[in-house]
Amino acid sequence: MTDSASPGGLSYESAGVNYDQLDAFKRACQQAAGQTVSALAAHGLLEPAGIRGESAYLLDAGDHYLAHVEEGLGTKNLIADDMLRLTGRSFYANVGIDTVATIVNDLITVGAVPISVAMHAAVGDAAWFEDPRRSVELAKGFAAACLEAGAVWGGGETPTLRGIVNPSTIVLAGSAIGRIKPKSLRVGGDVRDGDAIVFLASSGVQTNGLTLCRKLADGLADGYLTPLSDGRTYGEALLDPSVIYVKFVSALQRAGVPIHYAVHVTGHGWRKLMRLVEPFVYRIRVVREPQPVFRFIQRHGPVDEREAYATFNMGVGFAVYVDPGDVPAALELAKANGYDAWVAGEVCKQGDRKAVEIEPLNVSFEADSLKVR
Amino acid sequence: MTDSASPGGLSYESAGVNYDQLDAFKRACQQAAGQTVSALAAHGLLEPAGIRGESAYLLDAGDHYLAHVEEGLGTKNLIADDMLRLTGRSFYANVGIDTVATIVNDLITVGAVPISVAMHAAVGDAAWFEDPRRSVELAKGFAAACLEAGAVWGGGETPTLRGIVNPSTIVLAGSAIGRIKPKSLRVGGDVRDGDAIVFLASSGVQTNGLTLCRKLADGLADGYLTPLSDGRTYGEALLDPSVIYVKFVSALQRAGVPIHYAVHVTGHGWRKLMRLVEPFVYRIRVVREPQPVFRFIQRHGPVDEREAYATFNMGVGFAVYVDPGDVPAALELAKANGYDAWVAGEVCKQGDRKAVEIEPLNVSFEADSLKVR
Repeated sequence: MTDSASPGGLSYESAGVNYDQLDAFKRACQQAAGQTVSALAAHGLLEPAGIRGESAYLLDAGDHYLAHVEEGLGTKNLIADDMLRLTGRSFYANVGIDTVATIVNDLITVGAVPISVAMHAAVGDAAWFEDPRRSVELAKGFAAACLEAGAVWGGGETPTLRGIVNPSTIVLAGSAIGRIKPKSLRVGGDVRDGDAIVFLASSGVQTNGLTLCRKLADGLADGYLTPLSDGRTYGEALLDPSVIYVKFVSALQRAGVPIHYAVHVTGHGWRKLMRLVEPFVYRIRVVREPQPVFRFIQRHGPVDEREAYATFNMGVGFAVYVDPGDVPAALELAKANGYDAWVAGEVCKQGDRKAVEIEPLNVSFEADSLKVR
Repeated sequence: MTDSASPGGLSYESAGVNYDQLDAFKRACQQAAGQTVSALAAHGLLEPAGIRGESAYLLDAGDHYLAHVEEGLGTKNLIADDMLRLTGRSFYANVGIDTVATIVNDLITVGAVPISVAMHAAVGDAAWFEDPRRSVELAKGFAAACLEAGAVWGGGETPTLRGIVNPSTIVLAGSAIGRIKPKSLRVGGDVRDGDAIVFLASSGVQTNGLTLCRKLADGLADGYLTPLSDGRTYGEALLDPSVIYVKFVSALQRAGVPIHYAVHVTGHGWRKLMRLVEPFVYRIRVVREPQPVFRFIQRHGPVDEREAYATFNMGVGFAVYVDPGDVPAALELAKANGYDAWVAGEVCKQGDRKAVEIEPLNVSFEADSLKVR
């Protein structure tokens, strides 16, 4: 099996997202950004080794790390707009939750817990804020998610960008400050041959792959109102709020369970499991049936199994790699904090090979299929 | 003289920015955000009194404050796009500088120096990044400005938002983490009757009022290529990079010169001088001739004197209020760090009245003309 996109059906690239161009710019930014590290000395701070390219940035502040992350929701709010128009029901509280989730779930992959989250909400026309089913619900969801993440909502920015943002929509994003204290709680990629891969369930598509989901809706006679196998509509299922995994990471840290690496399963789907630079093979032996919305997407795209797992979270929103001896504690802490977690497989050292092997599906992704660092 | 917008000519409202709707949403957010403060206790942090509504958020971390700000560039990059098309010259390094400037200049108003800045760059089509005269120059300018601000470039986010962002453009924004150490360096609004108002020169329009500037260009036969009185083109002048005021604030802090309050003169122009909650009258006695670009805007809008000072920085990018005895030191430190600064007037207590009086122009703005908190 090769790593090329599926020849037929709907792929993420054909849905309009070109990761190659994006990643080239990201690398240019990382290079320029690397030249600014000299600024830290005057603050008595250091940049820890290996942090560039991780999902959040860290600063070594002596007895703790400070963490910084900037993240965006993507295009999910366009679905909420369509559903509001179609059904009169507002999903904007969920959109607010998702905006926070995408920020804080990135932050915790390095072991930092969020302390302050800021909102960035850019519109093309300030009239967007007139409908409280959007604006007030958005604010409520954002605040609720900050509380769930254990963070204060520390300000934000709401510019009107005529000519840049489509007047009927909004760009939702934000940033967070986090902290790792003591520094030993940093999740730095101390992965070992034989580590257990623990998966945490997602609530559905969460915040990635939405461009493809929207394109698919355009081709359905009933669009977002098309029923899934469980009787809910496609649009409603897409808008289920994302799971916030902060409490899980915090619980493991408090209990002294070392997290060798953590992955927020977003863009690039399960390929992201091999995000760590050091080469390992991630052998997935347990694949659960994903939520009905994924099967619906696969059938109507069509999106084949390989492309689906290369793009969507397929029911898995977060993964941690831990010592096999720590699995019972990890699973128990997950359960105690309301998360659905299970052991999905193990990490194996196979020389220089880096890959994700999803054994039950006979699908594997080699290193060159992931260019996110 | 009343506070209503000018009846004729081009006002900021008619150019499409409605601050009332925006500010209503901001207040809704501040209310919801206020309910998340309880999250701080678990981190051993406190929210300092009076910080909501300031230009940056602060967290009391015991022996220091942590600062957090999220800010956006606005629509200035659209002018850089037009100028690239018209002249083949890239101004994107300046756009990168401006993006950082708008973030860090907000941060320092509370006395926090930036330590990490993150970029948010959202496009409608990843093809935007293909032209290195935009993408590479943007990255270079962003990095140079971080260094000028004494901060590290700590990551960022570059989403593709089809259907949300105009495919030919980009949303530029970002966030910063800052710090105030020791806490006594916080600029909290300790303003007194008789304080001197020290102005720092801007480089031109910097990052506010650009929507109006763009609308004005549409009505000119030669658009951005129309010459100003100094022979430069309108477009070139608009794209002069913003001044970064971090070194000025840092220098005063290091020298032990207390800053009673600081204002980043952006949206709302000189009305922003009365940003502090406590009522004072800000009496401006010295008004310098602003850069030619402002006179050009006023003549071609037309934008009358009152509206111009209510909208643009009119040559003044930053203001601090200090004890009159500290004026010589403040001016000397400004000069030593490359800033053009002067004493513009003084702060007066007049009971409950809050106003900005620009005496040489016979223009005054009362409290109800500013609703930014």
